[in-house]
Amino acid sequence: VLDEVVEALHSADLADLFEQLTTEDRAALVSHLGEELDPDVLTELDEVARDHVITEMQDQHVVKAISELETDDAIHLLEDLDEDEQRKILDALPEDDRRAVEEGLSYPEESAGRLLQKKLIAVPSLWSVGKVIDFLREESSLPEDFYEIFVVDPLHHPIGTVRLSHLLRSGREVLVSDIMDTDPKVVPVDMDQEEVAFLFRQYDLTSMGVVDQNGRLIGMITVDDVVDVIDEEVQEDILRMAGVQDTDILETVWEASRNRIMWLVVNLGTALLASTVIAQFDATIEQMVALAILMPIVASLGGNAGNQAMTVAVRALATKELTPSNAMRVVTRELSIGLLNGSALAVLIGGLTAIWFKNPELGGVIALAMVVNVIVAGLAGIMVPLTLEKMKVDPALASTVLVTAITDVIGFLAFLGFAAFFLL
Amino acid sequence: VLDEVVEALHSADLADLFEQLTTEDRAALVSHLGEELDPDVLTELDEVARDHVITEMQDQHVVKAISELETDDAIHLLEDLDEDEQRKILDALPEDDRRAVEEGLSYPEESAGRLLQKKLIAVPSLWSVGKVIDFLREESSLPEDFYEIFVVDPLHHPIGTVRLSHLLRSGREVLVSDIMDTDPKVVPVDMDQEEVAFLFRQYDLTSMGVVDQNGRLIGMITVDDVVDVIDEEVQEDILRMAGVQDTDILETVWEASRNRIMWLVVNLGTALLASTVIAQFDATIEQMVALAILMPIVASLGGNAGNQAMTVAVRALATKELTPSNAMRVVTRELSIGLLNGSALAVLIGGLTAIWFKNPELGGVIALAMVVNVIVAGLAGIMVPLTLEKMKVDPALASTVLVTAITDVIGFLAFLGFAAFFLL
Ligand SMILES: [Mg+2]
Ligand SMILES: [Mg+2]
Ligand SMILES: [Mg+2]
Ligand SMILES: [Mg+2]
Ligand SMILES: [Mg+2]
Ligand SMILES: [Mg+2]
Ligand SMILES: [Mg+2]
Ligand SMILES: [Mg+2]
Ligand SMILES: [Mg+2]
Ligand SMILES: [Mg+2]
Ligand SMILES: [Mg+2]
Ligand SMILES: [Mg+2]
Ligand SMILES: [Mg+2]
Repeated sequence: VLDEVVEALHSADLADLFEQLTTEDRAALVSHLGEELDPDVLTELDEVARDHVITEMQDQHVVKAISELETDDAIHLLEDLDEDEQRKILDALPEDDRRAVEEGLSYPEESAGRLLQKKLIAVPSLWSVGKVIDFLREESSLPEDFYEIFVVDPLHHPIGTVRLSHLLRSGREVLVSDIMDTDPKVVPVDMDQEEVAFLFRQYDLTSMGVVDQNGRLIGMITVDDVVDVIDEEVQEDILRMAGVQDTDILETVWEASRNRIMWLVVNLGTALLASTVIAQFDATIEQMVALAILMPIVASLGGNAGNQAMTVAVRALATKELTPSNAMRVVTRELSIGLLNGSALAVLIGGLTAIWFKNPELGGVIALAMVVNVIVAGLAGIMVPLTLEKMKVDPALASTVLVTAITDVIGFLAFLGFAAFFLL
Repeated sequence: VLDEVVEALHSADLADLFEQLTTEDRAALVSHLGEELDPDVLTELDEVARDHVITEMQDQHVVKAISELETDDAIHLLEDLDEDEQRKILDALPEDDRRAVEEGLSYPEESAGRLLQKKLIAVPSLWSVGKVIDFLREESSLPEDFYEIFVVDPLHHPIGTVRLSHLLRSGREVLVSDIMDTDPKVVPVDMDQEEVAFLFRQYDLTSMGVVDQNGRLIGMITVDDVVDVIDEEVQEDILRMAGVQDTDILETVWEASRNRIMWLVVNLGTALLASTVIAQFDATIEQMVALAILMPIVASLGGNAGNQAMTVAVRALATKELTPSNAMRVVTRELSIGLLNGSALAVLIGGLTAIWFKNPELGGVIALAMVVNVIVAGLAGIMVPLTLEKMKVDPALASTVLVTAITDVIGFLAFLGFAAFFLL
């Protein structure tokens, strides 16, 4: 029964099943399946389950699986293994496969070189459609799937691409050079995967050629893998903004705890900074305890307003909607929004405070502090990500903590400072 | 020169250019281009620029553009227009096109029906590969691009698909039924686009058939549009978590300000709630002003720890890594992480406080409050999204404010409460 279930499942669903199993059950299923385990399942596993399953598999099965996969999937399987394990498997691979995988691993992580599969269809421009079709029918070593054929010159430089749907609608006698797209998008092997994904999205691509330093076609990237990259990149951004690793959900309690505490300690630092600001006003608070009751409001609303502006900025940078050419306009826009919303909130909280504490002057002070802090928050929300981007630091990684630090400090300083100045 | 530049640009890049222009320049470029404006540019525009450009275009040019587009792109262009404008254009469309677009618009927003293009290749299973190729060569009304052909029975139910790469590698005499994938993924027309995107990702699809209530094939969805859906959905989630609209960056100062202030007012409510908690302890604070200096630390770190757990939970729900079947395990995990990190932070802040204020008892109190708040934060971070998902409320929309409210209230309550109990 188990075998039937496993047999009937799509490799991606079987991978999900593996991910849900306990370590023991997973090991048992791996040894039960032996070499029947479909290599495609391995490529679909999340990184924790993948490393575990590969460790559990017999070495010769891993070697066999990897030699059956396209280059990109083989690399994907091996890249996170520890060096000994990786070396052992590489050495057992057939010469050709080994060289292809080693080449892939030599490119930087998250670069086009890690995503490319070497198998593709490349033909000279003088071939006719009929000749291409005959070639495809006869050739035994074709990629499992492909969406376009590449047209290359004698030096293997890509000079065009023909989508399969266009190939199929043309007569046998038509020349490839007559139907090819003569301005094919290609990327250099060391391009960052985020850039690659942008090109796929922007130009609605299903596959794209990758060239080496000499402009020679060395492989192709396909859209199914780019979809995973897009997912991976936003996932990373979202989680980074919250101070967690993108693998958090897969980690053990110890790993997740260790990774999260680092961020919390940084936040403790900024919280202490805010506390030292408050400490400057201890005499003021002692005289007027209402200040202690109200002060978190100013900081908290400033923090939220800053977070709104910051999230918009971080995303707009990622999607290239925010560029140096419109940065000035967006900064002005955030200033205006800050002024409007700061004023609206000021009226609201100023009025409520005046009534609650029967103290109109206190209402005026909190209103003034609110306007200041919400404007500063908007400005920090846009300037911090822009500055980080310019400094080539990932804005998703460091913006939150910096913006919070600024809105906390300014919030407490403005409210308690104005109170000390105007009320006492 | 302008015409040459425009001519040379890819439609997606020209769309980007349009987006960057001021309203006047945009209008000028639209009227300059007249009917030369490539309809593909319209489909690539963001929603604000799109509505603007369509309004600026002469009606007959809009009608012509729409009749040249695939169904899904035509719908995309029309769906956000106001009703009069939409009606006027629909009425001017050729009968066939009008019916196709109206049908599309009749499906719910963000459903498969809005993403499908009606043009596809469907053949009977008895056709040979040669017959299919001849058909593709002779037929003049083919989709601009397609990645597989659909095999249908006489009632037009999909019974298989053949990828173009598999069609091309098979001999002319081979029957379609021999090479087709007999278990094609299809979706009902009313399926949510987020589910559709999940299937594309999970099964590495490039196109997928859409069926009506009777299981008849009525169109196909292609991967380029799904890539946009994936982007749209995560973008929406990220921005919702921060309390901003997904169109924020496109909005005017007034619109953005109005949309953001709603969220800030909700946050003002939770901040006031926290203030009323502090107000219960005004006598305590009056006696010991150090409490006012330190209290934001407990709330702020609790907030950050809660945000970590919450972001992990919201994302894991979206990617289906968190399901009812492993929810219990994840809750326990958050509890353990909360206990570990709460204790670590407690030691740190407790020690610092004891030294700073030369008051070990105060250090003990803040340490205790920290443990409590970080554990509660972890629990809230996971339980709030899980509960919202169960209540069919988007966890991305409401989790942040609820988790912050909880960590603020518990943070102040625990710290000031323990202080009142143990220190005075
Ligand atoms: Mg999976
Ligand atoms: Mg990778
Ligand atoms: Mg696109
Ligand atoms: Mg691949
Ligand atoms: Mg794949
Ligand atoms: Mg990256
Ligand atoms: Mg990134
Ligand atoms: Mg664009
Ligand atoms: Mg996939
Ligand atoms: Mg498109
Ligand atoms: Mg489309
Ligand atoms: Mg949605
Ligand atoms: Mg959603």
